[in-house]
Amino acid sequence: MERLEKQLALLMELDRLKSVLRRTRVKSAEKRLENSAEHSWHVALMAILMEEYANEPVDTGRVVKMLLLHDIVEIDAGDTFVYDTAASAKQEEKELEAAKRLFGMLPEEQGKELFELWLEFESADSADAKFAKALDRIIPMLLNYHNQGQSWQEHGVTREQALTVNQKIQLGSETLWDKAKQIIEEATNNGWLKA
Amino acid sequence: MERLEKQLALLMELDRLKSVLRRTRVKSAEKRLENSAEHSWHVALMAILMEEYANEPVDTGRVVKMLLLHDIVEIDAGDTFVYDTAASAKQEEKELEAAKRLFGMLPEEQGKELFELWLEFESADSADAKFAKALDRIIPMLLNYHNQGQSWQEHGVTREQALTVNQKIQLGSETLWDKAKQIIEEATNNGWLKA
Repeated sequence: MERLEKQLALLMELDRLKSVLRRTRVKSAEKRLENSAEHSWHVALMAILMEEYANEPVDTGRVVKMLLLHDIVEIDAGDTFVYDTAASAKQEEKELEAAKRLFGMLPEEQGKELFELWLEFESADSADAKFAKALDRIIPMLLNYHNQGQSWQEHGVTREQALTVNQKIQLGSETLWDKAKQIIEEATNNGWLKA
Repeated sequence: MERLEKQLALLMELDRLKSVLRRTRVKSAEKRLENSAEHSWHVALMAILMEEYANEPVDTGRVVKMLLLHDIVEIDAGDTFVYDTAASAKQEEKELEAAKRLFGMLPEEQGKELFELWLEFESADSADAKFAKALDRIIPMLLNYHNQGQSWQEHGVTREQALTVNQKIQLGSETLWDKAKQIIEEATNNGWLKA
């Protein structure tokens, strides 16, 4: 079963995503930094709960698959803070290398299919990818808001930055962008985002 | 947007699953206990990677949805160690109450649909549910095996228990049950499971 062994090897490698830390904190109890594996679970479930708010009809199964896979490249490339635009630019190449290595562990045709799905998410052209990206952008804002703006405060994020960096939410969901703007205004009024 | 606010309230409540600890440890770096949110991500991705090993044709989108939802009841009911059969019996009622509370936070028809999907997983009658259950059973064995049998050793699990508790894997996937038996034999030979 060489095929199964290849798939199992990737599965065990993916365990490492549980050790990649993000800038957001879990809302519950311990307030520790969130890792990219539990974030991926949370945002994939969000797709299931919120599919009705996509601007265009989406294939929720594909959106969920994208979201489960979207961050695995951080195993090699690490997480980049969305407001760190300089780092984000350099990140792209590292992530592409990581995708090639990880999906390359799979049987060829399977690896190719999932690599293409990952690329589709990254390029954010399709309706499925635009919606997936919108969810991935809004969920840390929701967590942050419910944590008294913790990550914004820790990193001195401004209202203007929050609006600029997150405006692409509207490409996937006008409804969720309206919600995001409401959060940004309230967070600014509360002093959690710099005016 | 009362509807959206209900969905967002559940989404934020689900964050608490990131603080429910299991008996398995992450394989990577820190060797800390795994939480149920990152486990749910890992096993949902396993469904995507391993769909070809289901005994019967399955709808992978549904299997993934079940796996993303299957543990959310632990937010109220806590995690039960699969080898603690006394606790497992009591757990059922607590989990049902939790499911009612959590899915009851959603707009009615949406909550009903997801509650029924959760029940389908629990009763393990359909092809989708049998395969989902098989994955949920084998993934901690794989992690344990790659951690030198840590959780089995910590809790004094025997080869016989491992075979009995996990044999239902074969109802979802004969191929993965063959793999599971191979793991159990090797773990026994290594002294990680008591003979």
